[in-house]
Amino acid sequence: MRWTQTLIPTLREVPKEVEALSHRLLLRGGFIRKLSAGVYSYLPLGFRVLQKIVSIIRDEMAKASAEEVLLPALHPAELWKKTGRFDLLGEDKISFINRSGQEFVLGPTHEEIITELVGAYVQSYQDLPLTLYQIQTKFRDELRPRFGIVRTKEFIMKDAYSFHRDEESLKKTYEVIYEVYKRIMKRCGIQVKIVSADTGVMGGAVSHEFMKVCPYGEDHIVICKKCDTAVSRDLAERAIDSKAVLDQGEAQKKLEAFETPNLKTIDELTNHFGIRAEQMVKTILYVAGGEMVAACVDGATEVNEGKLRKAIQAKELRLATSEEIEKATGAPLGFSGPVGLKHIKIVIDADILKMQNFVTGANQKDKHFKNVNLGRDFKADLIADIRYAREDDHCPKCHETYQFLTAMEVGHTFQLGTRYSKALEATYHDEAGEIHPIVMGCYGIGVNRLLAAAIEECHDEKGVIWPVTIAPFQAVLMTLNEQDEASRRVAEEVYGQLTQAGIDLLYDDRRERAGVKFNDADLIGIPIHVIISERNLAKHQIEIKT
Amino acid sequence: MRWTQTLIPTLREVPKEVEALSHRLLLRGGFIRKLSAGVYSYLPLGFRVLQKIVSIIRDEMAKASAEEVLLPALHPAELWKKTGRFDLLGEDKISFINRSGQEFVLGPTHEEIITELVGAYVQSYQDLPLTLYQIQTKFRDELRPRFGIVRTKEFIMKDAYSFHRDEESLKKTYEVIYEVYKRIMKRCGIQVKIVSADTGVMGGAVSHEFMKVCPYGEDHIVICKKCDTAVSRDLAERAIDSKAVLDQGEAQKKLEAFETPNLKTIDELTNHFGIRAEQMVKTILYVAGGEMVAACVDGATEVNEGKLRKAIQAKELRLATSEEIEKATGAPLGFSGPVGLKHIKIVIDADILKMQNFVTGANQKDKHFKNVNLGRDFKADLIADIRYAREDDHCPKCHETYQFLTAMEVGHTFQLGTRYSKALEATYHDEAGEIHPIVMGCYGIGVNRLLAAAIEECHDEKGVIWPVTIAPFQAVLMTLNEQDEASRRVAEEVYGQLTQAGIDLLYDDRRERAGVKFNDADLIGIPIHVIISERNLAKHQIEIKT
Repeated sequence: MRWTQTLIPTLREVPKEVEALSHRLLLRGGFIRKLSAGVYSYLPLGFRVLQKIVSIIRDEMAKASAEEVLLPALHPAELWKKTGRFDLLGEDKISFINRSGQEFVLGPTHEEIITELVGAYVQSYQDLPLTLYQIQTKFRDELRPRFGIVRTKEFIMKDAYSFHRDEESLKKTYEVIYEVYKRIMKRCGIQVKIVSADTGVMGGAVSHEFMKVCPYGEDHIVICKKCDTAVSRDLAERAIDSKAVLDQGEAQKKLEAFETPNLKTIDELTNHFGIRAEQMVKTILYVAGGEMVAACVDGATEVNEGKLRKAIQAKELRLATSEEIEKATGAPLGFSGPVGLKHIKIVIDADILKMQNFVTGANQKDKHFKNVNLGRDFKADLIADIRYAREDDHCPKCHETYQFLTAMEVGHTFQLGTRYSKALEATYHDEAGEIHPIVMGCYGIGVNRLLAAAIEECHDEKGVIWPVTIAPFQAVLMTLNEQDEASRRVAEEVYGQLTQAGIDLLYDDRRERAGVKFNDADLIGIPIHVIISERNLAKHQIEIKT
Repeated sequence: MRWTQTLIPTLREVPKEVEALSHRLLLRGGFIRKLSAGVYSYLPLGFRVLQKIVSIIRDEMAKASAEEVLLPALHPAELWKKTGRFDLLGEDKISFINRSGQEFVLGPTHEEIITELVGAYVQSYQDLPLTLYQIQTKFRDELRPRFGIVRTKEFIMKDAYSFHRDEESLKKTYEVIYEVYKRIMKRCGIQVKIVSADTGVMGGAVSHEFMKVCPYGEDHIVICKKCDTAVSRDLAERAIDSKAVLDQGEAQKKLEAFETPNLKTIDELTNHFGIRAEQMVKTILYVAGGEMVAACVDGATEVNEGKLRKAIQAKELRLATSEEIEKATGAPLGFSGPVGLKHIKIVIDADILKMQNFVTGANQKDKHFKNVNLGRDFKADLIADIRYAREDDHCPKCHETYQFLTAMEVGHTFQLGTRYSKALEATYHDEAGEIHPIVMGCYGIGVNRLLAAAIEECHDEKGVIWPVTIAPFQAVLMTLNEQDEASRRVAEEVYGQLTQAGIDLLYDDRRERAGVKFNDADLIGIPIHVIISERNLAKHQIEIKT
């Protein structure tokens, strides 16, 4: 391709508010253009990189015997209502009612659609296992689009779905795709940290995130350098000693109630009384399996619901409603505490073992207690790790200090189980004719995020350094002096020959100074430079720089 | 690929209401699945055909030095309002307001987006010409989706846009892409009729439609076998003789007004008085260039506004409002007629030359005239061809009877001119530094329609017959007796070798009867069958059928 026949609008400057490095370089190199917040166009260079990434994905997915399909973006809302995700997605989803009164969701993911589809055709255990995938545009009404093409309203996903008769078959495919994902990242020149992850809104049991560690990103991962633990922040456990004894620096004082009219939150209490959040214990009420559970953590931290659910071995967990709280504790929301609670399981975070004379709600309207002490004033039914990990926590395996890193999620794999097949009645019959729900896995890659991740991986002060596997062109050809007839003639000849030979070549045929061409070639990150200068021509030479 | 590892849900029966042959075969062959009216999923076989078509398109577009981009589906509504197309598209467009109050259109086409984009970067005549294209999913709230993937709410378009300094450069690129389109169709095995077409809502001057003639389809084309004329029905001119004289079978009767209270339409008049529509003359009032025009056609036909606009050499034309009609004729809408009209240009269709003693509005409320005669009762300012062509019309060049055919539009090219660049201020400066709007062309291909068109082109009673260029697999391999150990062993060996050699091979490894496999292979239309039978194995032979 000749530079003058394509559109490579390199820029000297980009707006100052552009914070991520990959975003800056994508704009400066003329790879993308913003149409609206979180909505981008891929210009010729950006599209070429996308296409090369897509080719690598297709090549690797074929090795996993996965077949490609293409599912619609317009989803009938009924399907989303059947799985309960219509409400769960809330305002993040884009939905509308069309002129005929049908309600549609613009697909942010495709579990519902593929489960309905496969469920309609698969009948027997002999039709399983089956892995299908697509590379398709998805939509999400992202409230705060960020980092250019990293967090957007419209994005390209590779989403794969596998279907099995049992967990064993699922695990086998899961491992195959896990390896495929590692190879895809490697071939795109991206080093990833693979971390155990929470399954969140997707459901299921096992899940891994493929994370590109980079200086920005809304995801956090926790690693332990000593024992190689690497998990998402949601899952990071910490070393706790549930038999820890107090540092008896201070004697236990007398329990006292005090007036806190309309002061319900930790912030309100700290502002009003000057008590530090760490001196308070927060009590949050949940309902699990029909029973009330009070979860206590220190006032400066948050309950990690995933950890709490696991600690009490519950399948599901939800916040109690105001009515339920008032009924169970006798006081409105904001005044709960562990002292005097009856018929409610009390789960405390291990941090509380080290606290004394703390403040809690008094289970009376407008009242809190001070000088509360565990053991003397209330008993815990369970002591566990139920808060999010912090930078001062230690790895539970080897007691090394954790390292916290920001990262960008580029892939995510899930062992979904039967969450979707049960809701949508996707079943198969076994050898004995018995009907079972299909066991599923799902596997996503943020295709456009790989562009950003590859740039984060490799760049210098001059611009992007693409790995040759996904570079928009393998090589760029230029003359030092485009006015020189001989240089131009040789360039044309070289262009013809290399293009003929199947080299993906960009010929910078602009009538620009050599400096401009060098700078642009460095900015857009083409791996090989073929330079034709009068001096070298005199020696019958062409300069090749890698 | 092994049949048992993919999803090819062939069906014996499809719902009776499925009218189009291509739709039936796409469903029966397991190529597509309907998710909702006008919304389809492409299953593995369907997707493979799509991909092969896409590869051909990319290969051919590259020959036209067109570079691929990817534009978003989420369009800020402002851009559509700037060109006036927001209202023009009416209820066909899908639009919504998101949680932040932004209004979006789900892109049904991308002139607005690409013009804004190119306008932002192109500055000089040296940046032109430029051709960009994308292959992308588009949306349209189709009221009556039909013919499977032919008329849908969500569809895949290849849309190209070219940018020029002048008409001459546009024409050059237009011709190149015209040839590219012919080659694309040919390589996909589709014979098309290329017809001159109306530019309609797109604007611009010259336009061609690439039509696949087939027994169904909502488009109509008109061809003359003698002189090779081929045009869309909207544009078909007819042979007229503006000096034609009446067949004086009947004497001119006396002009008479008669009462027609509240009878305004041709239907109401025919029902009430038993007059035939062909005995009436319909008078429609338009405004062109600020002046009123009365267009008269016989009561059984419709004014072709494109023809009328050309006949009076107007740039724009619109229907007059009720108020304008009342002011100009003295009577409300529904009672207009040519007799007694003043200061209004009267254009009559040539058919009226052959009519006498006809019925028209009397330009008085609740009154019509009968026994109206041209010449005696009113004069025409212009006699022209201003109605749609009919099957009994003749070619104006050679007076041969026209042939009307139904067809499916698979491609459409437009010389747009400056319709979009003016509205969106996409300009360039010339050598003298003067600013001009960029001259544009646009070129679409309905990618999924090519699937349907290729099936219409070639099939038999057993199923699809894909051309090898776009067949989902080049060959299918099967054993006659899958129970036979030796057959299976040889099949595995052949499968390994051919796959290794790069043959796109489907191995039907199902434990099904040979009859089922033969029928399915014929249904899904794989060009080459490789058959392994015990009888042939005994002779060290493998059967290959094309």
